[in-house]
Amino acid sequence: MNLVVDIGNTIAKLAVFQQDEILLKISADKSDLNKKISEILKLHPGIKNLVVSNVSSAKWKLPEGAEKSVRVVELSAETLLPFKNNYGTPATLGNDRKALIAAAVKYHAGKNVLVIDAGTCITYDFKTAREEYLGGGISPGLKMRFLALNNFTANLPLVEAGEGHELIGDSTTSSITSGVVNGTLMEIEGIIGKYKEKYNNLIVIITGGDATFLSGNLKNGIFANSNFLLEGLNFILEFNIDQ
Amino acid sequence: MNLVVDIGNTIAKLAVFQQDEILLKISADKSDLNKKISEILKLHPGIKNLVVSNVSSAKWKLPEGAEKSVRVVELSAETLLPFKNNYGTPATLGNDRKALIAAAVKYHAGKNVLVIDAGTCITYDFKTAREEYLGGGISPGLKMRFLALNNFTANLPLVEAGEGHELIGDSTTSSITSGVVNGTLMEIEGIIGKYKEKYNNLIVIITGGDATFLSGNLKNGIFANSNFLLEGLNFILEFNIDQ
Repeated sequence: MNLVVDIGNTIAKLAVFQQDEILLKISADKSDLNKKISEILKLHPGIKNLVVSNVSSAKWKLPEGAEKSVRVVELSAETLLPFKNNYGTPATLGNDRKALIAAAVKYHAGKNVLVIDAGTCITYDFKTAREEYLGGGISPGLKMRFLALNNFTANLPLVEAGEGHELIGDSTTSSITSGVVNGTLMEIEGIIGKYKEKYNNLIVIITGGDATFLSGNLKNGIFANSNFLLEGLNFILEFNIDQ
Repeated sequence: MNLVVDIGNTIAKLAVFQQDEILLKISADKSDLNKKISEILKLHPGIKNLVVSNVSSAKWKLPEGAEKSVRVVELSAETLLPFKNNYGTPATLGNDRKALIAAAVKYHAGKNVLVIDAGTCITYDFKTAREEYLGGGISPGLKMRFLALNNFTANLPLVEAGEGHELIGDSTTSSITSGVVNGTLMEIEGIIGKYKEKYNNLIVIITGGDATFLSGNLKNGIFANSNFLLEGLNFILEFNIDQ
């Protein structure tokens, strides 16, 4: 069994994998992370391997004594990856983006794949049918856009994504919802369109905290998978153990 | 002669109009605003009217004695507007958005007009061919998106819009440029497309600090006009004086 730990910008996610199956999945406050790791290792003594991806400034550690029974792979610039990394500055490629491409290689081998992770940020990552990672894009996530409008102006309130997102908002709140939600949807559809112009038979995966909300409002033919990053981390772990 | 003062989220803009012609236009730090108003009134003693739109928390005042010779219209919820305001919450409609619609009415009467102001925020404002303002949208501006990515994450640097914006960024910086610049362009084109689906013969105006940069990268048929807001304020001033 493997324990997969994804420490993101906002929260941490932990999952226990038995082969490709997820037995347990929880979200945790970053301040609770070490306690949760310890509890999960007690609950599942069969865990032999742990992989950690950390894109935040949070610190984590194994419970005392666990280093004897649990092998740890912490993603870094040196971690072996199951794809050809053509990124111009491979040392700066975020761990979360590595995991997403690893999952694209595992589940969609031989295909052109665009992975969109709609979380704190929206990341766009592309791998070719020849399993080469080329790069992509990073833009603010849905909640970050709402937060920015409130934070960086004098008069705009903090709004949250709700039910509707009419094209023409007729109040400050509905104008913000319109601009942020429709803007994000149009951004995603437009960028998918640009990739489709360049790459045949493109497979598009959307994951991350806003994947369900966004994919319900996007055109058909986009796969939503909330576990894609965790699955990719598990694949990187297996790939490194096998070396 | 009229003095038009637009106090925005980031800076203030001042313009002197003789009828519809701009004789002088300057940008000023908000801390310098009162000094600049005083200097301009000295330079152009023919200024009889002043209009102020303030969307920031900055305070301003006339130089001592000027109230005798200069009539002031400060935009508020009570200011008369040269269009029918169908906004659901008219008291909360931003002064900058009122000015943009006033300009659309003055320069494109009898047309469906979408005004996009790409500044601190990107605002979308729509008036019908029957001179009714319906509302629109608000999303983060280009610089605000770069700032948010740096501010609300642990690891992303502050990037500025530069020359290129390749679809596939192959470094952290070029990924951010790709996501923010292409994302904003796709948002704007997508939202224009949605309005065109609903409204015939749509005229699209783009204004604000990023108008030149963005319009150079957008499809044809969009008018860039960097003075649109100032022209709208001047029209609101004339409209109120004439009552």
